[in-house]
Amino acid sequence: MKGSKEIALGVDCGGTNLKLALVRKTGEILRSRQDPIDYQETPEKTVSKMARRFKAFLKQCRAAHVESIGMGVAGDIDQAKGVVRFSPNLGWKNVPLRELLSKEIDQEILIDNDANCAAWGAYCLDAKRDCENLVCLTLGTGVGGGLILNRKLYRGSTGSAGELGHMSVQSDGRPCKCGSFGCVESMVGAWGMIEIAEEGLQKGLAPILEKILRRSKKARLSPKTIEEAALRGDPYCKQLWWDTGQKLGCALTNIVNVLNPDRIILCGGVCKVGSLLLDPALHTLGARAFKTPAQRVKVTISGYNELLGVVGAALLHWE
Amino acid sequence: MKGSKEIALGVDCGGTNLKLALVRKTGEILRSRQDPIDYQETPEKTVSKMARRFKAFLKQCRAAHVESIGMGVAGDIDQAKGVVRFSPNLGWKNVPLRELLSKEIDQEILIDNDANCAAWGAYCLDAKRDCENLVCLTLGTGVGGGLILNRKLYRGSTGSAGELGHMSVQSDGRPCKCGSFGCVESMVGAWGMIEIAEEGLQKGLAPILEKILRRSKKARLSPKTIEEAALRGDPYCKQLWWDTGQKLGCALTNIVNVLNPDRIILCGGVCKVGSLLLDPALHTLGARAFKTPAQRVKVTISGYNELLGVVGAALLHWE
Repeated sequence: MKGSKEIALGVDCGGTNLKLALVRKTGEILRSRQDPIDYQETPEKTVSKMARRFKAFLKQCRAAHVESIGMGVAGDIDQAKGVVRFSPNLGWKNVPLRELLSKEIDQEILIDNDANCAAWGAYCLDAKRDCENLVCLTLGTGVGGGLILNRKLYRGSTGSAGELGHMSVQSDGRPCKCGSFGCVESMVGAWGMIEIAEEGLQKGLAPILEKILRRSKKARLSPKTIEEAALRGDPYCKQLWWDTGQKLGCALTNIVNVLNPDRIILCGGVCKVGSLLLDPALHTLGARAFKTPAQRVKVTISGYNELLGVVGAALLHWE
Repeated sequence: MKGSKEIALGVDCGGTNLKLALVRKTGEILRSRQDPIDYQETPEKTVSKMARRFKAFLKQCRAAHVESIGMGVAGDIDQAKGVVRFSPNLGWKNVPLRELLSKEIDQEILIDNDANCAAWGAYCLDAKRDCENLVCLTLGTGVGGGLILNRKLYRGSTGSAGELGHMSVQSDGRPCKCGSFGCVESMVGAWGMIEIAEEGLQKGLAPILEKILRRSKKARLSPKTIEEAALRGDPYCKQLWWDTGQKLGCALTNIVNVLNPDRIILCGGVCKVGSLLLDPALHTLGARAFKTPAQRVKVTISGYNELLGVVGAALLHWE
């Protein structure tokens, strides 16, 4: 494969899938694949399995040499040491991922939080590295965040900066899984929305959503079905999207007032709904944030979305 | 004056007072003074008056040469251009402060937001520049903030980053002067506390505070009198400090989860109350923030307090 010096392997270690992508320095994906993975075995065995997958994938791609392997893992990551301090999704605690992998692969291995990887991906792909400060919010089952400040990933003093999902915008609000209350994640993440939708269903307030769920055995309560119900006129679901957007807008306001970024990029499954979420969010931002920084910031949904994490992981080498 | 090459003039432009200090690179104050100033005249005339004061002060100090003049101004500052975009305290809008001063003083002039200056002062004095990331919260009439990230002042994309007083922790909370709701400032700043105390007085819930205010003509409703009442057992004032501390703790939690700093330094008049504020704040932080970054961060009240702004302004030259 030509130009192999400008190529890296990106890895996104999700709780159920392992995503691999061969990525050029430019961000272009040359090849990718995704396979289920389970973390039932010991970390040593799982990592060994990962290493075999990496090698097989590189062989498939006929990539004799990659510059680096970059990996994104959900959880509390010691990026400097390459240790997964704690990952609820993987069930790992203090796993020296880099050390274990290094036994099998003689290669630079960079490990970072998955939301940091997505932020770096958003910076390289959506922003084309053409701004100083960018904040990325990943609205998935939970809500993650990553900060690019002065053109570099800002990781903070123990590597856990950017946990925007656990910024509280309602200190007496809904209990969050982290132990706090009113966190962005508890309202804007998919699990939070689903909880609130369930409450509506139980109270009989969401008749159209109920119909959608009853109609098909496959239909599950999700941001997608809540979207469908809202678009069909379900009042509870319409209100839920409006409220969710407003809460997101409160989070954006805090981000703008505190971090004054050029760009805020939204990604993750919940964003797919588009204007149903973005309109109330931007409305709230306009009404609440300081004028100068609010006029500067450009808030958009990523054009690359689910790819940001794996591409960003690969591009860590060129940070 | 010996070693004059390592000396700068710091200026803190408050709404009612102009503070000047001759400061060594080490942060040591050689001499300082504070005089009332009013901003009734045109900005041109006021700035001209300032320039004369600077020169007279330097003459008094027998400082033939200073490296730089650093100025802190409350409001929205364009630090790169040296323009005061908007300062409610001074009643200024788009005043080219550096340009005006440069007509009268042939000297490097650095202008920044006053809370940024305080943060830089806290970094140099309280932290002795011995950490990577520090957040400073100024709890005065309002609440300001400044961020030192990767050992440098982080100003954001239009120079207004760090407005931690206008981070909302209660999106449906008390109206803030900025137009938003539940901002830290509306609950933890002096004006916010005074408003809440007044509500208690009107409802007859704060009998001891009432007595303190009636006893002396000089006594005004302020964090100090609310403290006195709390210490004498006024239930409403005790609760008010506890609530204020908790709200501060929610703000600290957001700061720790999002910015993961080594240090958080509190300064400003409201901090003088000490543990009455700090105890509930730290309690809330411990209960709500992520464990790893919460264990790392050291939250303290500045040992230099009111001096941070003017010293930090002087030290901008050595950022």
